[in-house]
Amino acid sequence: MKAYKEMSKEELLTLKNELENEFSVIKSKNLKLDMSRGKPGADQLNISMEMMDILNSSTELKCEAGVDCRNYGILCGIDEAKELLAEMIEVPKDNVIIYGNSSLNVMYDTISRSFTHGVLGNTPWCKLDKVKFLCPVPGYDRHFAITEHFGIEMINIPMTENGPDMDMVEEYVNNDEAVKGIWCVPKYSNPQGTTYSDETVLRFANLKPAAKDFRIYWDNAYGVHHLYDDDQDYLIEILEACEKAGNPDMVYKFCSTSKISFPGSGVAAIAASKANIDEIQKQLSVQTIGHDKLNQLRHVRYYKNLDGIIAHMRKHADIIRPKFEVVLNTLKNELGGLDIGSWTSPKGGYFIAFDSLPGCAKAIVAKCKEAGITMTGAGATYPYGKDPQDTNIRIAPTFPTIDELAEAIKVFVLCVKLVSVDKLLEQK
Amino acid sequence: MKAYKEMSKEELLTLKNELENEFSVIKSKNLKLDMSRGKPGADQLNISMEMMDILNSSTELKCEAGVDCRNYGILCGIDEAKELLAEMIEVPKDNVIIYGNSSLNVMYDTISRSFTHGVLGNTPWCKLDKVKFLCPVPGYDRHFAITEHFGIEMINIPMTENGPDMDMVEEYVNNDEAVKGIWCVPKYSNPQGTTYSDETVLRFANLKPAAKDFRIYWDNAYGVHHLYDDDQDYLIEILEACEKAGNPDMVYKFCSTSKISFPGSGVAAIAASKANIDEIQKQLSVQTIGHDKLNQLRHVRYYKNLDGIIAHMRKHADIIRPKFEVVLNTLKNELGGLDIGSWTSPKGGYFIAFDSLPGCAKAIVAKCKEAGITMTGAGATYPYGKDPQDTNIRIAPTFPTIDELAEAIKVFVLCVKLVSVDKLLEQK
Repeated sequence: MKAYKEMSKEELLTLKNELENEFSVIKSKNLKLDMSRGKPGADQLNISMEMMDILNSSTELKCEAGVDCRNYGILCGIDEAKELLAEMIEVPKDNVIIYGNSSLNVMYDTISRSFTHGVLGNTPWCKLDKVKFLCPVPGYDRHFAITEHFGIEMINIPMTENGPDMDMVEEYVNNDEAVKGIWCVPKYSNPQGTTYSDETVLRFANLKPAAKDFRIYWDNAYGVHHLYDDDQDYLIEILEACEKAGNPDMVYKFCSTSKISFPGSGVAAIAASKANIDEIQKQLSVQTIGHDKLNQLRHVRYYKNLDGIIAHMRKHADIIRPKFEVVLNTLKNELGGLDIGSWTSPKGGYFIAFDSLPGCAKAIVAKCKEAGITMTGAGATYPYGKDPQDTNIRIAPTFPTIDELAEAIKVFVLCVKLVSVDKLLEQK
Repeated sequence: MKAYKEMSKEELLTLKNELENEFSVIKSKNLKLDMSRGKPGADQLNISMEMMDILNSSTELKCEAGVDCRNYGILCGIDEAKELLAEMIEVPKDNVIIYGNSSLNVMYDTISRSFTHGVLGNTPWCKLDKVKFLCPVPGYDRHFAITEHFGIEMINIPMTENGPDMDMVEEYVNNDEAVKGIWCVPKYSNPQGTTYSDETVLRFANLKPAAKDFRIYWDNAYGVHHLYDDDQDYLIEILEACEKAGNPDMVYKFCSTSKISFPGSGVAAIAASKANIDEIQKQLSVQTIGHDKLNQLRHVRYYKNLDGIIAHMRKHADIIRPKFEVVLNTLKNELGGLDIGSWTSPKGGYFIAFDSLPGCAKAIVAKCKEAGITMTGAGATYPYGKDPQDTNIRIAPTFPTIDELAEAIKVFVLCVKLVSVDKLLEQK
């Protein structure tokens, strides 16, 4: 394959003509395919169906503590649910609070609480002139939406293959008291699938924040979401690392079973130091009498323990691995050597990050739309929806069937080629 | 029966002696009974057990709109759940948002959102020097806990048999811009079991608030929770009343199925005008991807419609009516004519309000404790836990078995007598 950049204007024009013909054919098919959504496919949901039978009218509905899970009570979750999720995210049970079905909701509430009541005795953020958050980019749009909603200034931190640029993180966190947090998806990150290196995690744990109420928002959404049995990323456990570094209170860790059991009906949790947990519990006691304990019990009875979760995650992997591979193979076969894009090859998680030539991402997504393929909006992976280079596109391979996906990704690479040719022609 | 107030010192001393002997006998029984908790008893939970079988691994799990309820999506609740709850609380479906398991959580979030982002374009409360709430008293402690948590100044509004003292409500709401809300449990109120009269509701609907962002927090927790088939309270629907009065945006209505299905695993909702709902939906889209739709589906498939709910509530009534009657009969038989207390006789809800002689409630609750009977803490029904007259005690008859309850209420009346005698002797 000849790199597009090395082609002459004439070669590019000939190529453009070929590609446009190809595009016309595809457009006439009136496709309607979607690679935008980080949702499990129906086949993945089906593997959890036995969970629907786990509790029934003849089941014992008391938890181990003897409390009737149908009734009010047990603010922070039943012990066995704490144990299950604690084991999964490698923290002690007593450092966990179980919530409802959405870890995003837990994160929102965490920011909201800091805004209205402050963090461990520090000034509530609503009383401050300026609050800033560091945002590793590209990142998760719903994280950025929360901080934007609260008027928090977001600062882009470039992601490297080892995680966020830690020189920049240290510079900001250790010197600027207005910096109150950083959004992290530390394992199989959204959208790259990158896992933070040991050095990165240890540098996080050893931050010396200017702000006493600085917290790392560690969204461990894909902690057990491996694609391969024999080739998995490893992530240092952050709570313990922070404690060892003398910063026990510096991190909130979030997780859920949304992409383990059912996205709409999973169980979410927060893990943190005792001081943080005590504070959260105090506020939570005003907010609710307790979350859905029957659903907690359903999860515990179904998965039993971490081994149960791991075995279950293998079934998910068996379904989505081929989907990732179709995308990665097509990208490689169709774009390899053309020098018009690069992409990540994650070993887990839900996404692949694609980077186009500068200034092409929006046009590629628009071109896909024209052909009936929905991609995540270009820019969505950046705070305020602004990708400064206009290069990043998030590919979500899990929701379509494998046939749909194979079709969709072919259209995608065609659009990448077309838009890249146009961009290069502009520069001739 | 001779009223205690008419007894001579000698008569009171003789009586005190008899009562203390009785108390010694009871104390020696080492009872451990609880009339403090507004929780359904296990017998009530059992009537909903078929709900545990409604969804299973061979059930269709798509909602009417064709969306897979296991997956992400449908921020504001599935249509059929909106319909069910809308019918129950007598509002149009499109004015409803379905939440998770806790209406308290919805109320907390509503206050929190007003605090951080304001209401329909008005200044966020966190930017104001002073925010005030009106609190009909006695009332629900968890309401007061939310407003206290946000540093909102709470103003006591005495309850009458028709609802809050509306002269006071109008005086405050129509003249003080700092008054942003009022907590209401308009039907079978906690703790009195009072239902607001037509005049009260219409005066609410016709308020002319000084603050544009004043809202009535209408916690319709016991809307279908009647004790009797043939003698039910009626409440004017507030959303429609407000709209007719030209105040469509002035009310948030809250409800849940907590005391219909399972307290820990019900479905909660908010109802409001379109403008309010649009604003809430916008914020909710930042907070979560959606609440538990499987649990919504479970409720819809089980109850089907309002008739299903009404039939189900009859079963609850059959269980708790005798409990209310045991309490009310004992109060009447033991305290009637003594002039040392008064109490309400609700036709629904979960509580009976007892008023002792001034200055006696705390001592009565303490005396009960000494005999092994747990009552709701005296003062709990007032903001800041301060009952100015120290008279109000909330009786919760539903959770104990009927035998336990019969025993507990006997101890209670004995404690009322003892403490009242002491109080009257002080004054001799």
